[in-house]
Amino acid sequence: MKVNGEKYRTIWPAEDGSGVVIIDQTKFPHTFETTSLLDLEDAAHAIRVMQVRGAPLIGATAAFGVALGMKADPSDESLHAACDTLLATRPTAVNLKWALDIARKRLIQIAPERRAHAAFELASQICDDDIATNMAIGMHGMELITEIAKKKRPGEPVNVLTHCNAGWLATVDWGTATAPIYMSHDSGIPVHVWVDETRPRNQGAFLTAWELGHHGVPHTVVVDNAGGHLMQHGKVDLVITGTDRTTADGDVCNKIGTYLKALAARDNGVPFYVALPSSTIDFSLSDGLSQIPIEERSGTEVSHITGLTEDGRTETVEIVAPGSDTANPAFDVTPARLVTGLITERGVLEANRKAIVKAFPERMKMSA
Amino acid sequence: MKVNGEKYRTIWPAEDGSGVVIIDQTKFPHTFETTSLLDLEDAAHAIRVMQVRGAPLIGATAAFGVALGMKADPSDESLHAACDTLLATRPTAVNLKWALDIARKRLIQIAPERRAHAAFELASQICDDDIATNMAIGMHGMELITEIAKKKRPGEPVNVLTHCNAGWLATVDWGTATAPIYMSHDSGIPVHVWVDETRPRNQGAFLTAWELGHHGVPHTVVVDNAGGHLMQHGKVDLVITGTDRTTADGDVCNKIGTYLKALAARDNGVPFYVALPSSTIDFSLSDGLSQIPIEERSGTEVSHITGLTEDGRTETVEIVAPGSDTANPAFDVTPARLVTGLITERGVLEANRKAIVKAFPERMKMSA
Repeated sequence: MKVNGEKYRTIWPAEDGSGVVIIDQTKFPHTFETTSLLDLEDAAHAIRVMQVRGAPLIGATAAFGVALGMKADPSDESLHAACDTLLATRPTAVNLKWALDIARKRLIQIAPERRAHAAFELASQICDDDIATNMAIGMHGMELITEIAKKKRPGEPVNVLTHCNAGWLATVDWGTATAPIYMSHDSGIPVHVWVDETRPRNQGAFLTAWELGHHGVPHTVVVDNAGGHLMQHGKVDLVITGTDRTTADGDVCNKIGTYLKALAARDNGVPFYVALPSSTIDFSLSDGLSQIPIEERSGTEVSHITGLTEDGRTETVEIVAPGSDTANPAFDVTPARLVTGLITERGVLEANRKAIVKAFPERMKMSA
Repeated sequence: MKVNGEKYRTIWPAEDGSGVVIIDQTKFPHTFETTSLLDLEDAAHAIRVMQVRGAPLIGATAAFGVALGMKADPSDESLHAACDTLLATRPTAVNLKWALDIARKRLIQIAPERRAHAAFELASQICDDDIATNMAIGMHGMELITEIAKKKRPGEPVNVLTHCNAGWLATVDWGTATAPIYMSHDSGIPVHVWVDETRPRNQGAFLTAWELGHHGVPHTVVVDNAGGHLMQHGKVDLVITGTDRTTADGDVCNKIGTYLKALAARDNGVPFYVALPSSTIDFSLSDGLSQIPIEERSGTEVSHITGLTEDGRTETVEIVAPGSDTANPAFDVTPARLVTGLITERGVLEANRKAIVKAFPERMKMSA
């Protein structure tokens, strides 16, 4: 999507062939900087320190990391070492393992002298696939927005509320929850986005607001407390969020607070959609509440926050009474009964096993 | 309640008769300081800059402000001027007007030479009445907590979730939502409080956490997003919040985000109580959603936050992507259908007109 009027992806091969370029997301939202990954260690570092984040982008970066490793040394040992190094950067990231498994399996069958080239091809393919998936999600989601727009007065925007960042910065391009928004906006449908700040890490206020702003999509940041009130007063037409993991029965695990917005949507008759690539559906799970473990993160994410001072310095401040305990569950589960539909690359599905299996029969077989 | 092991009110006459002492709440949560109000202008300043806050405490401070004015000049002109000066400090504060109306009406009937003494008596009476009301709320609310405690294993705490600060710092002592908590704790019932940080102004993390901590009540600060998840996992036994304004039909206007917690409570079978002095019931209103205007506050409360740096400086940082719009509705309305009960000084009432009018028949007549 656009930054300062120019088109970007979050990761791309350098024009001079020297390596790979990424947007350094640790500098957000106050600084936009790209940085070059010249070798395997640069790629591992980028994932480790979260210069890149978001499951699809982590997978793509890992694939490029393998390619950089193969460029330096295409031996079998080097291939395995590269995959092991990258896997250790964020051991619980599902897409990281997925991308590395593919890379290891495919590249080991290729002669070392052709491995570097094949590895770059594979990484590019993973990027293109991610974009194709997100554009498919975007097109299906755009139909939902278009239906609402038809009932509006000319020029009156469709109001979408979103939580956290399931935007293009978490993917290679377009994003998942944001793909329908960008496509609608680009096609001339007036859209306005309510952006939940998404405490404690403020991915909404830092990332979603940043990317919507740069692409020119009208949006307003609100505290996470405000969404229910906005829905009570008819100011939200639909909710679209992303998800980290969805069960085969349609329960949605996403950033903490998503469940509260789903409840408010139901109470006010506002449709609540979840946009997802089918790769995030876990066919081995049925009941999200009992089966998905919720990561408990450091309490300092609650008690401290980093921002920009008036004189332009980055500063961290404590914002909880000294001595008080904090707790920081990072995700919650929205039961399928509260989900109006799942926007996938194969269309908008009801959030139940029957609809999900019907749309992805091959995934069910793999899991069985 | 207790601060550093000593008992405090939020406002009290100085022992040496020189004036009135308050806790300076602008210094919270990182500094505890008392300050003396020596004359009318000190009292007006304290209200204006929010050294004191919370409806009951503002009313009490205004009453003491009149007394300080009468001490300097007990004439009729001085009385009216003092009331006018104080009323202008926060023109929309309901309790401020209420306290000044009483002071003006009573004191004008008293001979000037006895006015200062009578004014101090009146201010003390207003403080004592506030404490009596909060203790009555506390006793009724404690019965609810006790009933839950009976079903727990010995030593297992009753988990209360609260939003914003309806604590003793907003009143003269005890608070409203916190009165049942302090009384239960003081009587030996194990209580643990989940404190919503309450963005954007963080009254939960700054004030509620501070006062619970100093009084020794176990508590944990969580982001506003977390409450639904905690309820899904059985970690909340009941919710108690305060309210700024309640309609005769039981709709509750309170800090933004309260409605989302009420929805989560209903979805999980968790009782949702609102603690209030009957003075905050507005018998002229029935439907809160359509009849209560919601204050839209400055967007900088969303985009900027103030805290303590590691080296002990108070610093304000920007926490929203530059250039993004913000919106900041300060309150929301929780419909009566989501409220399990109203904890008032006359008992726990169902949130409906019949129960409210039955408990406060004289208020209904006044309003008719």
